[in-house]
Amino acid sequence: MSGLVGPDSITSAASQLDGATVRTPLLDASHWAGGPLSLKLENLQPTGAFKVRGATVAVARLDPVARARGVVTHSSGNHAQALAWAARAVGIPATIVIPHGAPAGKVAATEGLGARVLRTDAARRAEVAGAVVAESGGVLVAPYDHPDIIAGQGTVGLEILDADPTVEVVLVPVSGGGLISGIAAALARRGVRVVGVEPELAADAAESLRTGVRTAWTPEQVARTAADGLRMTQLGALPWEHVRALVDRIVTVAEDEIADAARALVLRARVVAEPSGAVSTAAWLHHRAELPAGRTVAVVSGGNADPGWLAGVLRPTAPP
Amino acid sequence: MSGLVGPDSITSAASQLDGATVRTPLLDASHWAGGPLSLKLENLQPTGAFKVRGATVAVARLDPVARARGVVTHSSGNHAQALAWAARAVGIPATIVIPHGAPAGKVAATEGLGARVLRTDAARRAEVAGAVVAESGGVLVAPYDHPDIIAGQGTVGLEILDADPTVEVVLVPVSGGGLISGIAAALARRGVRVVGVEPELAADAAESLRTGVRTAWTPEQVARTAADGLRMTQLGALPWEHVRALVDRIVTVAEDEIADAARALVLRARVVAEPSGAVSTAAWLHHRAELPAGRTVAVVSGGNADPGWLAGVLRPTAPP
Repeated sequence: MSGLVGPDSITSAASQLDGATVRTPLLDASHWAGGPLSLKLENLQPTGAFKVRGATVAVARLDPVARARGVVTHSSGNHAQALAWAARAVGIPATIVIPHGAPAGKVAATEGLGARVLRTDAARRAEVAGAVVAESGGVLVAPYDHPDIIAGQGTVGLEILDADPTVEVVLVPVSGGGLISGIAAALARRGVRVVGVEPELAADAAESLRTGVRTAWTPEQVARTAADGLRMTQLGALPWEHVRALVDRIVTVAEDEIADAARALVLRARVVAEPSGAVSTAAWLHHRAELPAGRTVAVVSGGNADPGWLAGVLRPTAPP
Repeated sequence: MSGLVGPDSITSAASQLDGATVRTPLLDASHWAGGPLSLKLENLQPTGAFKVRGATVAVARLDPVARARGVVTHSSGNHAQALAWAARAVGIPATIVIPHGAPAGKVAATEGLGARVLRTDAARRAEVAGAVVAESGGVLVAPYDHPDIIAGQGTVGLEILDADPTVEVVLVPVSGGGLISGIAAALARRGVRVVGVEPELAADAAESLRTGVRTAWTPEQVARTAADGLRMTQLGALPWEHVRALVDRIVTVAEDEIADAARALVLRARVVAEPSGAVSTAAWLHHRAELPAGRTVAVVSGGNADPGWLAGVLRPTAPP
């Protein structure tokens, strides 16, 4: 287990985030959720998702000389905005390679944060990002498969324990695995059970944990879920080490359960979750028998919902 | 000015609320709002609105013998749930008189908190509530025109100043006037400018402050705004004393500006506002030239949005 992120790295990450990201609220939901549930509202981060934590810590820990030449990544999702945010905060350039077909709103948001955006075919995005690194001398900041990213996401766990030292179970959305790895690294050794949640339609991590072998699903398979933030086809290598060592179990949720949870979050908690951010609440509302008992926190990991999707969730009988 | 609520009453109200309501977050919005704006998220209260503060303080300050016989009010809105919540918290009965035609969701939510709900014609609601008081020996808890209610709502102001001692301007939705009275009583003497916001279609308080005479609009007039929480036809008598003594100005916003602000709150802040809760953000986004300059807080007073209305805001081109 020597490759796992340790508590000191997460504690130091918390210092590096101080003032740069939001210490998000832990909001009690027990009055409507039928039991001892609270919500960790990572959707209230300035970029709308937890990813800004890992990106900020990763940038803070880069060699200053290399970093000054800029940071680079390829992402169509929340990591793109997160890295753009983190780079702007320290005054360095960011280049984000975004595949054609990504939502226009996410592209605009990334550009709005001052990043240079390069559009390319999805199949060529790693190659294009590599070329930018080679040409600029900048640094590639990967979205989840890195100890500094995991340490940054782990600060979510520290904040949960600080806000409620009696927490027993934490429910965490799983895609590439950076978030659950960090939270498990922060909490599993302190007696808190960390449970992953995936869509049934993108359940590669659940299958991996069940079989003991890190398994990939096809892009066509994972594309079926509305949870666009959870469409990584497999866990990263380092996250996989954390998941198999520290995660209690992984449960899966159906698409209609994700929509129902997002609706409940709007109408009962008055917050906006994107589908990826709603899966943890869906697990509580619809799969409670599969969860460990006890005081539970659902991590609402992001809130960058497509407005049309959210409108459909709120008015399910309306025409699409 | 001897009738105004004083700072000691608000400080004591804060102690009475400790643990009973949420100390709501102050969320920075300056990265998307084009200037120094933060949001005071009263929509994150368990009943979805600030009203639970005033109701909790009013119940705490009642004579214990009378209180044990129960509390009574007439309301179709957020005060109904607030009083039901406050009564349940201390284990006393609550009777809420709700006019026919009130949204089914609000009736169900009030009943779900254990309150007895009596339905009646709108014109008879005060009479019915009075009969319940006479019969039960319980206590009528009015929604805004009372110093204990105003003291409870004033805790919003204390929390704002505590979270950001540099605040210069606070924007507050105005209906019966309890919220703005409390916030002004907490902050105006400490150099913070308190600004009211009303819909153009229910601008009785703006007219009152302009003319110096407390003015009533007709129910037909105020019914035109989507902001159902701001349809009181005039300020309460005690709120009016606070408004004319302590409020800097009142600005008005158009219906499409309210919808635009609610959409921005969903897409940029990832929180849900009902139309009444969005007017303060609408004032910032669309009437900034009419506001005092400086670090500003918009109070997002409530989040009990009708799902159809919210879906329409998110998908403005969809059929109703």
